[in-house]
Amino acid sequence: MAATNRQFRLAARPVGLPKPSDWKLTEEPVRDPGPGEVLVKILYLSLDPAMRGWMNEGRSYIEPVKIGDVMRAGAAGRVIASNDPSFAVGDHVTGAFGVQEYVISNGKGLTKVDPKLFPLPVYLGTLGLTGLTAYFGLLEVGQLKAGDTVVISGAAGATGMVAGQIAKLKGCRAVGIAGGPEKCAYVTRELGFDACVDYKRENVTQALRQHCPQGINVYFDNVGGEILDAALLNLARGARVVICGAISQYNTTTGIKGPSNYLSLLVNSARMEGFVVFNYAARYPEAACEMAGWIGQGKLKSREQVVEGFETFPDALLKLFRGENTGKLVLKVEEP
Amino acid sequence: MAATNRQFRLAARPVGLPKPSDWKLTEEPVRDPGPGEVLVKILYLSLDPAMRGWMNEGRSYIEPVKIGDVMRAGAAGRVIASNDPSFAVGDHVTGAFGVQEYVISNGKGLTKVDPKLFPLPVYLGTLGLTGLTAYFGLLEVGQLKAGDTVVISGAAGATGMVAGQIAKLKGCRAVGIAGGPEKCAYVTRELGFDACVDYKRENVTQALRQHCPQGINVYFDNVGGEILDAALLNLARGARVVICGAISQYNTTTGIKGPSNYLSLLVNSARMEGFVVFNYAARYPEAACEMAGWIGQGKLKSREQVVEGFETFPDALLKLFRGENTGKLVLKVEEP
Repeated sequence: MAATNRQFRLAARPVGLPKPSDWKLTEEPVRDPGPGEVLVKILYLSLDPAMRGWMNEGRSYIEPVKIGDVMRAGAAGRVIASNDPSFAVGDHVTGAFGVQEYVISNGKGLTKVDPKLFPLPVYLGTLGLTGLTAYFGLLEVGQLKAGDTVVISGAAGATGMVAGQIAKLKGCRAVGIAGGPEKCAYVTRELGFDACVDYKRENVTQALRQHCPQGINVYFDNVGGEILDAALLNLARGARVVICGAISQYNTTTGIKGPSNYLSLLVNSARMEGFVVFNYAARYPEAACEMAGWIGQGKLKSREQVVEGFETFPDALLKLFRGENTGKLVLKVEEP
Repeated sequence: MAATNRQFRLAARPVGLPKPSDWKLTEEPVRDPGPGEVLVKILYLSLDPAMRGWMNEGRSYIEPVKIGDVMRAGAAGRVIASNDPSFAVGDHVTGAFGVQEYVISNGKGLTKVDPKLFPLPVYLGTLGLTGLTAYFGLLEVGQLKAGDTVVISGAAGATGMVAGQIAKLKGCRAVGIAGGPEKCAYVTRELGFDACVDYKRENVTQALRQHCPQGINVYFDNVGGEILDAALLNLARGARVVICGAISQYNTTTGIKGPSNYLSLLVNSARMEGFVVFNYAARYPEAACEMAGWIGQGKLKSREQVVEGFETFPDALLKLFRGENTGKLVLKVEEP
């Protein structure tokens, strides 16, 4: 193989928003796959808020990316050489391939996907870990029941859009929180949420009180900060607060803002529970099948925002933290 | 009846620690009990951190005490006149009698207790709502399992002392957090906790790491603030954080300090859950019987700190917030 693999490696642990100097763009020749290995040409990279956490030092649910290592990322690609009988040249696959143009895999964690059924970016979003996060977070951690009032922050984001639609599919009232009138219109008109609070223009505490007169039964939180506090003020008795993420806090340089209204948990006999989707790995196929069925039936909409150009990765990632994406943010590395 | 009933009424909603001017000491003649009513001479008042919350305006798990009303409080007393065949003169009873010397009751919420079996203050503490709070908080909300590492803040307090001993009875490792060497010695030597962290002298985060090398499975929190944050840093996977109270925050004038380390819930797939003991009212008799049995067998120790003089109530209450009590704080109103 004469090809060159470009890779974004972590050069420094960021303080605040990742800067260009926190990355190092390196090149190395693509080697041939060894026995049992496959060579994958990466076509799409999944851009996820969780990536910011992986760049930090310290104990977490997964090892931090080491300085000098290729940045961890989910991705979709095409097998271009294979010494593994399970994967043929031309197969499309997803996996934790990293921010690079090619990857050699031993087949572990590799999932075959069919681009004729759904576009590849869907397998990184709604039918990937993002959608599964919404599914298990809402149904298992949130213990969703028909008739619940469900509030979802980051409602126009990759996880939030799926969570809200699942809530509707399960017979719940779904209220989103998103930034700006376009996102809010998308959430209510396209996705079918019952309401959406524009946190940039509205008093979130008051708006939630208005939209959830009986209180919130399940709050699915992707953002943390003041919006989490506003939701806590509006809990119903026995509410479940699902801590999926806290994008407003990931780039703080002044310390995480803890939820000042956490004693609402006491007053309402409510719970706040965190999770990572990996807890449910054994049930991924079952959940993905159910969601694929919903998409096929037109009951679950999936939206991907595709940006282009491998070299734009450092800036593309920041779109997540600037609130610039609607739906799943994906970086196209090469035309499929 | 020629007797006079003295009462502490709420004169103003306190800002910070309740001041003498937040109370009004009033007197009124004791009236005869009407049909179906009993007249109780109050002997002991239960002093509880939760009382501070009842003095605040706003929605909570129970109505706030209104300005001008007799302050709400649990109490124990003796029936001195009765028109209710269920209660005879001379019976001892507990109930939410309020901060006063006499109370007329219609029998609702009145519980007969036997002062020959246990001293009356025990029925306000370990065998009262305080002990029941520890029992249900640990076993139901905390989902305690044998072998768990359990950490309890306010370990020398009325609820904490019971929670830690129940943890030991159930085959767990119990680590307390308390203020000062005397309280810590009491917690380990008298109550049998495996260790106790002195938060006034030790770095709580480091001390918990040392005493809980496998992480905390159940954290029973009575205090909030920095100690809650320290515990969150030391959670084991799947940990349960029981929010029983937050005494460090009840008198804040600068806003509640939310737990900055709450994302430890996400990283560890852990939960934080609040509760009020009233949720378990149907099971009070069952739980109180079990605990009475433990006390009788010498397996559960109960300690009460009795202060005297009805008129000292405003200052006696503050002992709780100054950390001056070990065990259950009780105000003796009259010699039983």
